Amino acid sequence: MSRLPLTLALTALLPLAVQAADTPKKSTYRSAKQIIDASPAGDWRALDPANTLYMELPGGRVVIELAPGFAPAHVANIKTMARGGFWDGTSIYRAQDNFVVQFGDADADDAAKAKPHPDGTKEKLPAEFTRAIKGAPFTRIPDVDGWAPQVGFSEGFPAARDPKKNRMWMPHCYGVVGAGRNNAPDSSIGAELYVVIGQAPRALDHQLTMVGRVVKGMELLSATPRGPEPMGFYEDPAQRTPIKRIALASELPEAERTPLEILRTDSATFRAATEARRNRKDDFYTEPAGHIDLCNIPIPVRTPAKP
Amino acid sequence: MSRLPLTLALTALLPLAVQAADTPKKSTYRSAKQIIDASPAGDWRALDPANTLYMELPGGRVVIELAPGFAPAHVANIKTMARGGFWDGTSIYRAQDNFVVQFGDADADDAAKAKPHPDGTKEKLPAEFTRAIKGAPFTRIPDVDGWAPQVGFSEGFPAARDPKKNRMWMPHCYGVVGAGRNNAPDSSIGAELYVVIGQAPRALDHQLTMVGRVVKGMELLSATPRGPEPMGFYEDPAQRTPIKRIALASELPEAERTPLEILRTDSATFRAATEARRNRKDDFYTEPAGHIDLCNIPIPVRTPAKP
Repeated sequence: MSRLPLTLALTALLPLAVQAADTPKKSTYRSAKQIIDASPAGDWRALDPANTLYMELPGGRVVIELAPGFAPAHVANIKTMARGGFWDGTSIYRAQDNFVVQFGDADADDAAKAKPHPDGTKEKLPAEFTRAIKGAPFTRIPDVDGWAPQVGFSEGFPAARDPKKNRMWMPHCYGVVGAGRNNAPDSSIGAELYVVIGQAPRALDHQLTMVGRVVKGMELLSATPRGPEPMGFYEDPAQRTPIKRIALASELPEAERTPLEILRTDSATFRAATEARRNRKDDFYTEPAGHIDLCNIPIPVRTPAKP
Repeated sequence: MSRLPLTLALTALLPLAVQAADTPKKSTYRSAKQIIDASPAGDWRALDPANTLYMELPGGRVVIELAPGFAPAHVANIKTMARGGFWDGTSIYRAQDNFVVQFGDADADDAAKAKPHPDGTKEKLPAEFTRAIKGAPFTRIPDVDGWAPQVGFSEGFPAARDPKKNRMWMPHCYGVVGAGRNNAPDSSIGAELYVVIGQAPRALDHQLTMVGRVVKGMELLSATPRGPEPMGFYEDPAQRTPIKRIALASELPEAERTPLEILRTDSATFRAATEARRNRKDDFYTEPAGHIDLCNIPIPVRTPAKP
């Protein structure tokens, strides 16, 4: 019998996340965390309350940043539905492992039980799978990507472009929010939404309308017990996760809002932090990767210091 | 007020998984599911009980296929520890969102409380980050990969190769099992293990020893509530997920085993199913992707029909 050697400490296996231990090998190398900690205030932006959703679950609040630049019609409809309390009392009715959680009205396909949409909801929207490249900001990263000719960030969201087809879209990275649809491309209106909780299912890229991204509270969605039915649905309503409310931040009194700042994806800090992740040189990494996948790049969020 | 249109059925958003709805657009296209359903028996292999671990959690059994071809010394040590009951009564003591769950002895770094290793456990092992290319089977896929010059499968596991460096390794795809270590490359012995539960953290590729892959029960690990401490640890032992037992399948009576068959990754069926996923042509997909990421390719598992 022997003791577990001390070298096998619980801190074994450093994470990729911001909180990674910082033990730079060379004084010239700064970790992503060090770079972010030293960032100027101007490299951060406050979330816009008019484009922020709070989803209240039994475990706490999920904060979603909406992406009107990618899906103006869907985002406008979602805001109408949130103002009208459409999702209050609905549920997460699907959790499929390594794929998505989906939420909204579990009775949506039962005409007798479906929850009515609030006044002003548009019942038909165009598909907004892609947007034109021209006029849309884009900060490209140099890394090769199998799904798109160009990848990077736009307006704080992961983005991919195909110049030959003059289109840009939000890839299916972990945490992005999309509008579920049926076979018809224009069959979504934003009532039924899904969030990616697994390996980026990018075969779905530019085949659905993407409406935003979870910026805080992902762990409340990703740890949802998976549904036992095919595709992760729950037949038993008691197994679904109840949604107390989904509200626009701007509709709440300031005291009830979650103040958050997001690191600008077009900032020097973000670029330098990404490069530090691409070529890690701390004591744990035996060699730098020289590459990073678009969907591996975290977009840092912080609670602003009190003024 | 209006009803939710019928087109927004709950079946909206088809999954990537095997259970995807099958509505082929053209009679010449067969979906991955159709191809797999029509597969010959010889394209499947039974799991080897001598290289299969059963991890018994409160929610059920997780089945792990060990990879002696990738990490012979670690796998031998893990088998010794499993036979000696090392993990019985230990826990999942870490769950970090979009990264890993980690399990073993939560008191491993406390010499006074650490659980002794079973007789025969080796307390020092070589790092087994990579293996030589020569002599190792490899079925390559043609898809570009940012992390490795060549990707594919070997002995039923995802694999990546770098011919210039004469090395092959198991990439950090969803569900792979690795041996946690400290900064020293040879500081793992397989006692503390982790499983990838998020976007493939492939910056860790060939920097840790990979010992296997979860082939059934991933949802019991991936839905673990995330730990509140930095890096996903739980300070409160009551929040950890208890592990009743980890046993080698071969040590259990046959009646207590989970019979499983895995689709051979070097079979014609696997190749055709992957191609069907690479270029989906059912009624949901508006255009085929023409690409698939190594870590997006599911390795089908089934319960064999009773003889």
